[in-house]
Amino acid sequence: MKFTKMHGLGNDYVYINGFEEDLSQVDLPELARRISDRHFGVGGDGMILILPSDKADFRMRIFNIDGSEGRTCGNGLRCVSKYVHDHGLTDRVQFTIETLGGIVTPVVELGPGGLVEQVVIDMGEPRLTRRQIPMTGPAEEQVIQYPVVVADRTFHMTAVSMGNPHAVLMVDRLDEQDVLKYGPLLEAHEWFPERTNVEFIQIKNRREILFKVWERGSGITLACGTGACAAAVAAILSGRTERNVTVHLPGGSLKIEWRESDNHVYMTGPATEVFTGVYLGEIPQK
Amino acid sequence: MKFTKMHGLGNDYVYINGFEEDLSQVDLPELARRISDRHFGVGGDGMILILPSDKADFRMRIFNIDGSEGRTCGNGLRCVSKYVHDHGLTDRVQFTIETLGGIVTPVVELGPGGLVEQVVIDMGEPRLTRRQIPMTGPAEEQVIQYPVVVADRTFHMTAVSMGNPHAVLMVDRLDEQDVLKYGPLLEAHEWFPERTNVEFIQIKNRREILFKVWERGSGITLACGTGACAAAVAAILSGRTERNVTVHLPGGSLKIEWRESDNHVYMTGPATEVFTGVYLGEIPQK
Repeated sequence: MKFTKMHGLGNDYVYINGFEEDLSQVDLPELARRISDRHFGVGGDGMILILPSDKADFRMRIFNIDGSEGRTCGNGLRCVSKYVHDHGLTDRVQFTIETLGGIVTPVVELGPGGLVEQVVIDMGEPRLTRRQIPMTGPAEEQVIQYPVVVADRTFHMTAVSMGNPHAVLMVDRLDEQDVLKYGPLLEAHEWFPERTNVEFIQIKNRREILFKVWERGSGITLACGTGACAAAVAAILSGRTERNVTVHLPGGSLKIEWRESDNHVYMTGPATEVFTGVYLGEIPQK
Repeated sequence: MKFTKMHGLGNDYVYINGFEEDLSQVDLPELARRISDRHFGVGGDGMILILPSDKADFRMRIFNIDGSEGRTCGNGLRCVSKYVHDHGLTDRVQFTIETLGGIVTPVVELGPGGLVEQVVIDMGEPRLTRRQIPMTGPAEEQVIQYPVVVADRTFHMTAVSMGNPHAVLMVDRLDEQDVLKYGPLLEAHEWFPERTNVEFIQIKNRREILFKVWERGSGITLACGTGACAAAVAAILSGRTERNVTVHLPGGSLKIEWRESDNHVYMTGPATEVFTGVYLGEIPQK
């Protein structure tokens, strides 16, 4: 089975082209577990399938390393956008991709060699009500700079859904130990019936945010594209930044704009193809 | 640059065929660091080059993930053996491979499809004197079941060189927390001027050993071939096992025989080719 390894800011997946590979009989969760294994398989944060869609130009399915299916992934969307353009599945620079988190509209920016260097993704409107996150409590209430006690500490939390739930905590100083300690506790907090991603952000200035993330089901990762969007929305809502900010993640930087004209969040960042290969392991069948 | 990803019991390296790729101008330590990175590169425990040799049929060079060059690697030797046979660099089933730890003589065992399934490697004689390990103290003395105090605990240690240094500790019950606590302390113990690998072993019965390893420069790994050899030698020297044992490592099992007739240690185990690929990243030049 052919595959391509790509990463967005170090958030790396094994990409499989469903236009070329017949996946109809494949046990996809089991394949994701095997192929994502970093010692016995290809290795990655998971597996992403690039597929035809009834509702959009393309469809992306994302499987985590544990075989569970994810809703969406900002870094993955940029890589899929680069893939479909650079591998000739489209010659347009704007198209639509269906995900479980909704349909998004990327625009690719080409480098001198004609290959995609940066991708701008319209991530849609941030969803802010407890019902949309989802969170327990009054359905139509928004949770902005809300005090939350986690173990021995009180944080001010803003809850944002970008197709998946995010709890953004604004702190004075980023500390990985805090992410390790409070991230998993808040992920599993009773307020979040579907659990939540947890972002720790420090405002550097009105145009820059420092960022660390505890991802739901994955723990600390190098980058989370939807998390960077949620972080920017939370910072803008607090009045501490402009609507156009650079978010510095451990794996690199993303530009995030929450545009006033249409209320949509636009994420701009790189996507990198690292290698193509042929997986020689057994393909598990349904 | 073409490469092949292989593993022996989960100890995985990026293999590069120096008969096909021109490596003369490549900054090898830097390439090893980049290509071994599990998020931004191909990902592996390091990079292994398969090269021509003046002294043997083939030469293996091993670069760790930090760019340093290793002396030898039992799991890597099995993979190199499979590679040179399956990729047609030799049609013999026995040949010699030069390493910084000496020349070894593998014998490959073929499966039904004509591809290598198991590899038997003559790892040579175990070296037991303090000078050979190397360890401080009387040069010609052997260190067998020797009491060593590490922090709050006394272990009985046997020191064995299989081309690289090993401190084997026999324990009543394997515990990963002990490996994490005492492994790094003994690795850096003043007795070992070149540091040491640290093996924790539990004798299951006269033919089976349970095994965990703290590898010099790498920490806990799934498998260490030379460590399994050293563990068998230590167990045999203690009189607690036969000369032919199975060592159960976290990544799988190896058969180790310390043959009486020639005093050599023979290691038998699998090697697996996971995928072949083309690395698209920049190749750093000298």
